[in-house]
Amino acid sequence: MNLDGLDDFTVEVPSWAYGNSGTRFKVFASPGVPRNPYEKIADAAQVHRTTGLAPRVSLHIPWDVVDDWGDLRAYAEKQGVRLGAVNANLFQDDDYKLGSLCHPDPAVRDKAVRHHLDCLEIMRATGSADLKIWLPDGLNYPGQDSLRGRQDRLAESLRRIYDALGEDQRILLEYKFFEPYFYSMDIPDWGTSLLHCLALGERATVVLDTGHHAPGTNIEFIVMQLLRQGRLGAFDFNSRFYADDDLIVGAADPFQLFRIMSEIVAAGAHRPESRVNFMLDQCHNIEEKIPGQIRSVLNVEQALAKALQIDQDALATAQREGDVLGANAVLMDAYETDVRGPLADRREARGLPRDPVAAFKASGYAATVTAERVGGTQAGWGA
Amino acid sequence: MNLDGLDDFTVEVPSWAYGNSGTRFKVFASPGVPRNPYEKIADAAQVHRTTGLAPRVSLHIPWDVVDDWGDLRAYAEKQGVRLGAVNANLFQDDDYKLGSLCHPDPAVRDKAVRHHLDCLEIMRATGSADLKIWLPDGLNYPGQDSLRGRQDRLAESLRRIYDALGEDQRILLEYKFFEPYFYSMDIPDWGTSLLHCLALGERATVVLDTGHHAPGTNIEFIVMQLLRQGRLGAFDFNSRFYADDDLIVGAADPFQLFRIMSEIVAAGAHRPESRVNFMLDQCHNIEEKIPGQIRSVLNVEQALAKALQIDQDALATAQREGDVLGANAVLMDAYETDVRGPLADRREARGLPRDPVAAFKASGYAATVTAERVGGTQAGWGA
Amino acid sequence: MNLDGLDDFTVEVPSWAYGNSGTRFKVFASPGVPRNPYEKIADAAQVHRTTGLAPRVSLHIPWDVVDDWGDLRAYAEKQGVRLGAVNANLFQDDDYKLGSLCHPDPAVRDKAVRHHLDCLEIMRATGSADLKIWLPDGLNYPGQDSLRGRQDRLAESLRRIYDALGEDQRILLEYKFFEPYFYSMDIPDWGTSLLHCLALGERATVVLDTGHHAPGTNIEFIVMQLLRQGRLGAFDFNSRFYADDDLIVGAADPFQLFRIMSEIVAAGAHRPESRVNFMLDQCHNIEEKIPGQIRSVLNVEQALAKALQIDQDALATAQREGDVLGANAVLMDAYETDVRGPLADRREARGLPRDPVAAFKASGYAATVTAERVGGTQAGWGA
Amino acid sequence: MNLDGLDDFTVEVPSWAYGNSGTRFKVFASPGVPRNPYEKIADAAQVHRTTGLAPRVSLHIPWDVVDDWGDLRAYAEKQGVRLGAVNANLFQDDDYKLGSLCHPDPAVRDKAVRHHLDCLEIMRATGSADLKIWLPDGLNYPGQDSLRGRQDRLAESLRRIYDALGEDQRILLEYKFFEPYFYSMDIPDWGTSLLHCLALGERATVVLDTGHHAPGTNIEFIVMQLLRQGRLGAFDFNSRFYADDDLIVGAADPFQLFRIMSEIVAAGAHRPESRVNFMLDQCHNIEEKIPGQIRSVLNVEQALAKALQIDQDALATAQREGDVLGANAVLMDAYETDVRGPLADRREARGLPRDPVAAFKASGYAATVTAERVGGTQAGWGA
Repeated sequence: MNLDGLDDFTVEVPSWAYGNSGTRFKVFASPGVPRNPYEKIADAAQVHRTTGLAPRVSLHIPWDVVDDWGDLRAYAEKQGVRLGAVNANLFQDDDYKLGSLCHPDPAVRDKAVRHHLDCLEIMRATGSADLKIWLPDGLNYPGQDSLRGRQDRLAESLRRIYDALGEDQRILLEYKFFEPYFYSMDIPDWGTSLLHCLALGERATVVLDTGHHAPGTNIEFIVMQLLRQGRLGAFDFNSRFYADDDLIVGAADPFQLFRIMSEIVAAGAHRPESRVNFMLDQCHNIEEKIPGQIRSVLNVEQALAKALQIDQDALATAQREGDVLGANAVLMDAYETDVRGPLADRREARGLPRDPVAAFKASGYAATVTAERVGGTQAGWGA
Repeated sequence: MNLDGLDDFTVEVPSWAYGNSGTRFKVFASPGVPRNPYEKIADAAQVHRTTGLAPRVSLHIPWDVVDDWGDLRAYAEKQGVRLGAVNANLFQDDDYKLGSLCHPDPAVRDKAVRHHLDCLEIMRATGSADLKIWLPDGLNYPGQDSLRGRQDRLAESLRRIYDALGEDQRILLEYKFFEPYFYSMDIPDWGTSLLHCLALGERATVVLDTGHHAPGTNIEFIVMQLLRQGRLGAFDFNSRFYADDDLIVGAADPFQLFRIMSEIVAAGAHRPESRVNFMLDQCHNIEEKIPGQIRSVLNVEQALAKALQIDQDALATAQREGDVLGANAVLMDAYETDVRGPLADRREARGLPRDPVAAFKASGYAATVTAERVGGTQAGWGA
Repeated sequence: MNLDGLDDFTVEVPSWAYGNSGTRFKVFASPGVPRNPYEKIADAAQVHRTTGLAPRVSLHIPWDVVDDWGDLRAYAEKQGVRLGAVNANLFQDDDYKLGSLCHPDPAVRDKAVRHHLDCLEIMRATGSADLKIWLPDGLNYPGQDSLRGRQDRLAESLRRIYDALGEDQRILLEYKFFEPYFYSMDIPDWGTSLLHCLALGERATVVLDTGHHAPGTNIEFIVMQLLRQGRLGAFDFNSRFYADDDLIVGAADPFQLFRIMSEIVAAGAHRPESRVNFMLDQCHNIEEKIPGQIRSVLNVEQALAKALQIDQDALATAQREGDVLGANAVLMDAYETDVRGPLADRREARGLPRDPVAAFKASGYAATVTAERVGGTQAGWGA
Repeated sequence: MNLDGLDDFTVEVPSWAYGNSGTRFKVFASPGVPRNPYEKIADAAQVHRTTGLAPRVSLHIPWDVVDDWGDLRAYAEKQGVRLGAVNANLFQDDDYKLGSLCHPDPAVRDKAVRHHLDCLEIMRATGSADLKIWLPDGLNYPGQDSLRGRQDRLAESLRRIYDALGEDQRILLEYKFFEPYFYSMDIPDWGTSLLHCLALGERATVVLDTGHHAPGTNIEFIVMQLLRQGRLGAFDFNSRFYADDDLIVGAADPFQLFRIMSEIVAAGAHRPESRVNFMLDQCHNIEEKIPGQIRSVLNVEQALAKALQIDQDALATAQREGDVLGANAVLMDAYETDVRGPLADRREARGLPRDPVAAFKASGYAATVTAERVGGTQAGWGA
């Protein structure tokens, strides 16, 4: 089985996935949840240790602010991982009730811009190249603010951030269909995100979160289109049944994940030189968090491995000949291939456990941290 | 203008709408938010004072638990309102992580059932007839639990509650398409709710929350169908652009609200003898809460007033003759009628302000309570 | 690999799938398309010949009307198949512009009822037990007709049909979310279909067409619920990306098909004694029709075979213990199993081709019928 | 009431709306339906005669091909209307089964390009400036063709058409979410349409069909965004409950239509100098076609008239002050205004009937053409 394309493929995990999360109705607390960025990184390192696939951890600012970034960076490296993208959190300050980069008040916009400039500084300290902007701005009621005015303010705010980028830094600009505002989001779709990126310059690229689309949207088409424009910066992987459900990637529609990875393979974008950052963005509201993350990175790997099984020559021939059923059959044959055994063999050959979830459970890590992490405040979206 | 049908029409407002609410990302705090059930009722009474439309307040247990129910009841009556339906809160206890009435563990189910029995006791003290059950139970992952097993457990749990109802008490059983679980809710649609009601008996009826449907669902069809079955117990009114957005009713699709009220009028269900409880279920995340509620009850009244303008004879004739455009035109003529003036006249004639929102603002109430309500913990979904 | 449950499992194929179909924009003609019911049956028999899975053919009246039903029945049996369910076509007569069983004019309703009585007669001649009613009735404009009046007329029309059923006959009553009317369908959801079935009696059951739901609907939940009520009469299998797309079953979301078949297996409903009729209802607008049908029945078999691989004991244990990830993993392990080889082995052992599509192509059947079927009018939705 | 902005506002009606249309299930025929382009134009002229709002008629090629374009043009002018945009029909030729401008076969692509070049010639003869391209290309099955390859072919085909534009001609490029293909359309969203327009040049603009979006999409946001980019070329107005329903504009969600027109007014784009072409694109499957069109243009006018009632100063103030409820109230006050009377007055003052539908019915036109148009083939999507 051809799995060569997997060699340099990596997934980036988010620090916040190890903290508590939930819905607006309830955040259930779990034993052993980390209380600070160090403990989050320790947890994230377990995912890499068992899978060999997740060598980077995304940060979220201000949640992950520490006094000494060099110390955090050294700690991560000692754990076997590196610090990844920095996410500039724009939704948790009371000032942002009516928006951040789009707010009607220039003072609030300025505050939000300055938060990003601070993040760029942090990135210099952590060695991170990617500033990820998910803009939570939007409106709940028609007429509440000027849709057009907000785009203009957004463009101006983004320009200030872009102009502060270092040579090796870039912006990852995310879009989202709805939530936390319901009438209109200020970057609701890939088209809006891309227009702002095109206006900014080459170091602005789009983040595709697999949960941020209207029902029925063909996501792999967007992947293809952004690759064609040279502007697919990153994925936020997760699963969605109806909304931004943030479930384990591949849990809701593994065939969709395979189709996405098929577009990636067709464009060679699974290779590091594409600079596409394959990130997870998930919540583990009711399931154990570290095994949930392990499962997710394995699911991404599995989808990629299946996509690598596509007989590209046979596919191209059937497509050229207009053989609808034949071309589809080539794709489905790759999808139906059971790659679990070969992937386990490959892990074993690389000194990794055949069954990462079982290995994590056997390690006793969960019991250890549950015993140790007593007192303090568990990390979560509110902290 | 014929507005006679309005005379006995009332809307029930929820106590929690005056507390803080938000999304999973952020709950913005507001000055002057009530800190206890008494203050919530005082706020709710402002809605009735300015509109004459909202004489009842729904409670939510355990949020609204007080030591002396008689005292709360007397307080409400002094404020000019009565205590209405009791909502049994099933989502905020750590035990309910995997469900309440459907939980795999019989001990948790028993706890959830007993919570309802307690609510029935409270209802006896408050003089409330309606026990509203929104079941937040569901699954996030395929396979997580047995879909069938959960239905059977639900039936058994509901039976225990139903059997404890007093003669004058009834169950209002709500359904919801998704959230707080994303793969499957245990009562996802009106069909499931109705089946459980039919199995229970005549005092079990369905609650239709206007935000709890899949996109594209024809809600007035469901209103008609539940009325036809004699099982429409109540509405939870609010607005939805995409999900359970809980915006001000009529804000997203006033024509839909009109169509719903047209089915109500066609069946005479706006009259008290229908026993349909017209309740609001909303959040005011970014707007002022009391004016938001005033606006909502006025929007419901406005939709009803427009529905009363339908020329039912002309409509029936056009329908019988298969005059598609003509029948639609009769409906649209009622909808396009501007009823704001006549409704203001009517309020004035009844000693109410022509412009309830302006009257509330002019009253100074907001400033007064903001000054008074210092210290303590503001009410919200977390408290 | 345990495949025992497959032994008595069959899929029913529809006669119209071999005719031309398309969208409102265009019906593309194909060479060799059948021109009459005999030729449709000959084509359908190819599916059974190569798969051993499709021994019955559904008819559509009036499309498939012949002079001598006994002759058609004998012809089918000579081809190795039997005549299956009868579909009463209610959408192609000019009289039905504003509805059939719900039409405001009693004369039109009577005509539609009598069409069903004729179908019952045909069923006596063909030996079919299942009368399938897909009601295309609905409204395009609010106000166009009384939603409630139409339900009452529907109930009355169905009652007349039900009362004419023979002892061994039953009604399969289908629902559909939208199309061919867009404001409201008269049986838009499973709840409405089930209510009518419950009112009619035990021989009325619901048809679940996998393409007839709102986006985000959990279809396996409905399967479970209808099985729980003892009223799941049949499936119309196909695939849907957005609407009633009628693509090859399993083409859009094979994991959903697996979850559906998992509910079927959990209830033992894949066994003949359940009397669930597993039918295809598809269009092959751009692909070859016979291979498209072969592919579909194989996809259904494959999903069932995977569902049979679920370790039910392990699943039940994980569910009971609240092990969210573990329970989901049991399900996914079954889904990820590659059953193609064992199913090919099984076919071979039963004297069937390992690769049914290849066998059909090698048979020369397509070339033969293309040469033979010259002149006449090709079957299609318009004929 | 300020209605000044209405003076130069016009709506363009499509020739095909007067022919027969339907769903894939059935096209119902109507008496008096036109049989050729001359009769279509005669019907369209009735809409302008009664409303004064619809002075142009869009053509569809090849449906509306005539021998002598100068004669058709003169005929139209004699009827009081002009020939408008030309639509290049790409869906009704058997060659286009697998696509037109994106087809894998260069010969088919060339044929499709040449069809557009022919349309440009026709436009020179008819005096039309707008070439409207709705691309029906797409895929039904994953893998069927290369998503990326099709974009590249599309870009090349469009380039050939664009390069043949005259100085005063432009391309209107439409997008559509789904149908007539279901897995993927080749221009599924505004982002894809706009990218192609940006690549082509300034004379390529986007057509927004109000029925061509995923559920929950905020259409007025797209209107604003395309106006901000200077690339909103035209509307195809109609109504959608769920899919591309093509109902009378304003029938499904009049508030949405108002919000769209509010963005138009905010940008001054209702004025001719914006060059936005406000077109109808509808079907009248079950209702009378000419009154259906009259109703539609009146609904567009009504929405515009309401949008003109917005107190822009009060709105801007409330928005600037973050007064969520106040800003929304300004918008809603305009929407709730009954503009029917003033619009009737205005028509009367201009020598037009107060009630255009009634005037049309009283004219006897329908009876006349029904008597005259006997024999021949009625126009429809198939002819």
